[in-house]
Amino acid sequence: MARARQAQLTKPRGSLGRLEELAAELAFIQGSPQPRARPAQAVIFAADHPVVRHGISAYPADVTRSMLRCFAAGGAAAAVLAARQQIPLSVIDVGVAEPLDEGYGSHASCCILRSPMADLPAGDLRCEDAMPEPTLRAALDAGRSWADSLDTLPAVAIIGEIGIGNTTAASAVAAHLLACAPEEIVGPGTGLSPDAVERKCNVVRDALRRIEGCSSDEALGRIGGRDLAAMTGAMLAFEGSACAILVDGFIASTAALAACRRSPGLRAQLLFAHRSAEPGHTRILEELAARPLLDLEMRLGEASGALTAFPLLELACALHGEMSTFAESRVPDRPSATA
Amino acid sequence: MARARQAQLTKPRGSLGRLEELAAELAFIQGSPQPRARPAQAVIFAADHPVVRHGISAYPADVTRSMLRCFAAGGAAAAVLAARQQIPLSVIDVGVAEPLDEGYGSHASCCILRSPMADLPAGDLRCEDAMPEPTLRAALDAGRSWADSLDTLPAVAIIGEIGIGNTTAASAVAAHLLACAPEEIVGPGTGLSPDAVERKCNVVRDALRRIEGCSSDEALGRIGGRDLAAMTGAMLAFEGSACAILVDGFIASTAALAACRRSPGLRAQLLFAHRSAEPGHTRILEELAARPLLDLEMRLGEASGALTAFPLLELACALHGEMSTFAESRVPDRPSATA
Repeated sequence: MARARQAQLTKPRGSLGRLEELAAELAFIQGSPQPRARPAQAVIFAADHPVVRHGISAYPADVTRSMLRCFAAGGAAAAVLAARQQIPLSVIDVGVAEPLDEGYGSHASCCILRSPMADLPAGDLRCEDAMPEPTLRAALDAGRSWADSLDTLPAVAIIGEIGIGNTTAASAVAAHLLACAPEEIVGPGTGLSPDAVERKCNVVRDALRRIEGCSSDEALGRIGGRDLAAMTGAMLAFEGSACAILVDGFIASTAALAACRRSPGLRAQLLFAHRSAEPGHTRILEELAARPLLDLEMRLGEASGALTAFPLLELACALHGEMSTFAESRVPDRPSATA
Repeated sequence: MARARQAQLTKPRGSLGRLEELAAELAFIQGSPQPRARPAQAVIFAADHPVVRHGISAYPADVTRSMLRCFAAGGAAAAVLAARQQIPLSVIDVGVAEPLDEGYGSHASCCILRSPMADLPAGDLRCEDAMPEPTLRAALDAGRSWADSLDTLPAVAIIGEIGIGNTTAASAVAAHLLACAPEEIVGPGTGLSPDAVERKCNVVRDALRRIEGCSSDEALGRIGGRDLAAMTGAMLAFEGSACAILVDGFIASTAALAACRRSPGLRAQLLFAHRSAEPGHTRILEELAARPLLDLEMRLGEASGALTAFPLLELACALHGEMSTFAESRVPDRPSATA
C-alpha cells in the first residue's frame, strides 16, 4: 500500500531515490500505510572497558566518566543533536568505572541514570572474560529495561554508546562473528597512531584465540562489553514490534549483528544511519546487506550518526504523507507520446 | 577561528567528519566564527523548453504548468520539504509556455510569481538559439531580482528549477562547458527509455555543433534555457556576500558551473547538496572539485536534494555552536600515555 501511494505522488517514479525506499521500509516495519518518524527515542549506554590498560585508546579511561558530566551539561555532541531535534535522550551508565559524584537524573537535554548492574564484575577481554555470565545477562536486561520503561512504543529508536576502549571490544566481537582476521576489522577508533592500531590488533587476536570455537552468544559476553550487550538487549526488546531501529555506526552495528545472530527476524526492523570511518563497519554492513543513508566520515559514536540521519526519516515520511497524488492535483502522469 | 573552536570541542578531533568541514566552510563564507544555516531562502525557477518537441522528456510539456498548480496546492515535493522546515520558498515562472489562469500569489507553503520576462521569445535549442540576447539578459536579471527582493541576506540560499525538457538544456550547456561528448553527460532525466536517451543525445549533439567555438557565456543563452539562466543570475547576485549557496542536483550544478565561468570567485560560496542519479552530474562535480553531502539517488529537481541536505547544515552549525569545549567541561584532551 505504501509503495502504491509512492507511485501516485506528483513526481517521476523513483525520482526521490532512497527517500522513497526509506518511507516504504518504515511503512513495512510499522505495518501502516503512513510511515512515521515520531515519536522517536534515543538511548546511549555508557561503560568502561578494563582492556584499556593495554593502550588501545587515544584517550584516557576516565574520559568516559567525564563525558557523562558533559552530557549532564548538555554540551556533548549527541546531547546537542537530540535537543535540537527534540528527541528524548537517555544516557544509561551500565559500567562506568567510577560513578559520578553528581549528575545522575534529569537534565535539559537528557536523563542520565546508573543501572544497578554497573557494579557487577567485568574483566579485561584480552586475558579473561569481559563479562561473567551474570553480568552479561544483566547488561542485556539493562537494555531491555530501557525499552520497557518507555511510555509508548517509539516509531523510531536510536541506540548508541559511549565508552573509552569500546571499539576494541566491538572489533573483537565483530571479528569473531564475521570470522575475519583482526586486521580486516581493527581501525584507528577515536584517533590512534599506526603503532597503537597494531597493538589493538594484537589485543583482539589474543581475545579471539582465547575463545576459539565458542558461539556468537557466548562471544558477546566473553570478549564484548557491557555497553555493547546493553545495546543488543535494547534492540532485541523491540523485536516483532512496529518500532524501527536506526542503527548508528560501527559499535552499534556490531551490537545489531550480535542481536541478529540471536534473532534473525530483527534484521527487517533495522535501518542503517551512516557508514562510519571505522574500517570494520563496511564488513558488518556487507554481512547484513545494509546500505547506510549517510557517508560523512563520522566516527564519534554516541549515536551521533543516527541522530544526524534522523531528519532524512522525517523528511521521507513528510514527503510520503503530504505530497499530493497525480489524481488530486490533475498533473498528467502519462508518458509523453514520443518518449 | 572556526577551525580552532572545532579542535576544542568535546570529541576526538575530526570525529564529526564532514560536519566539521561543513561548519568551517560556512564560517568562512559568512566571515563569522559562528556559522549559521538560518535565515534560509529557497527559490525555484520554472520554464518550458521548446526542445521538448523532439521527444526528449518522459513527460508531456504541460506538466511544467501543472506542477505550478501543484506548488500552489502545497503538494509538490519541494513545497512539502520547505514547509516542513519552515524555509520560505518562492517559485518564479520565467517562461512557462502558458501562464496559469489562477494560482500566482502567496500560498501556505510558497509564493508563486510570473516574471514579466516569461513572455519574451525562446527557441528550440536544437536548431535555433534557446534565448535571443535580450531574453538571456532578462533571465539572468530575473534571478538577480529575486535575490535583491529579499529583506535580509540569507545565511543559506537554495536555488532550484522545474521545467520539462530542462535536463536536455542542462546537458547541452554542461557538455559545452566541459568539452565532453553528449554520451558522457546525457542521462534518463525523469525516466527516459534507452531509445529516448539516444534521441536526447542526438539533440544535444546538434545543439553543440551549431555553437561550436562559442564562449561559455554565449552557450548559456544559445543552448540553455530561461530557468537555467535565472538560476545562474541568482547565484551571481550573491557573489562576494556572506551568503552560502546550497546547490541542488545536475541542473542547478550546471547553472553553478556557468556562474563560476563568469565569476570564478563564486566557487568558494558553493556547497553541494547531493550527487544526482543523472550521469552528467558527476562530471560537473569533478570539474568544480565538489564533494556532495548526500548520495541518495535522487533525480527530481525542484531543489529537493538541497532541501533534503539542509538539516545537515543546521546540525553542523548547532554542533559547532552548542557543544562544550574541553576546557568548559573539564574533559581531559591529552592523548593517553600509551597511545
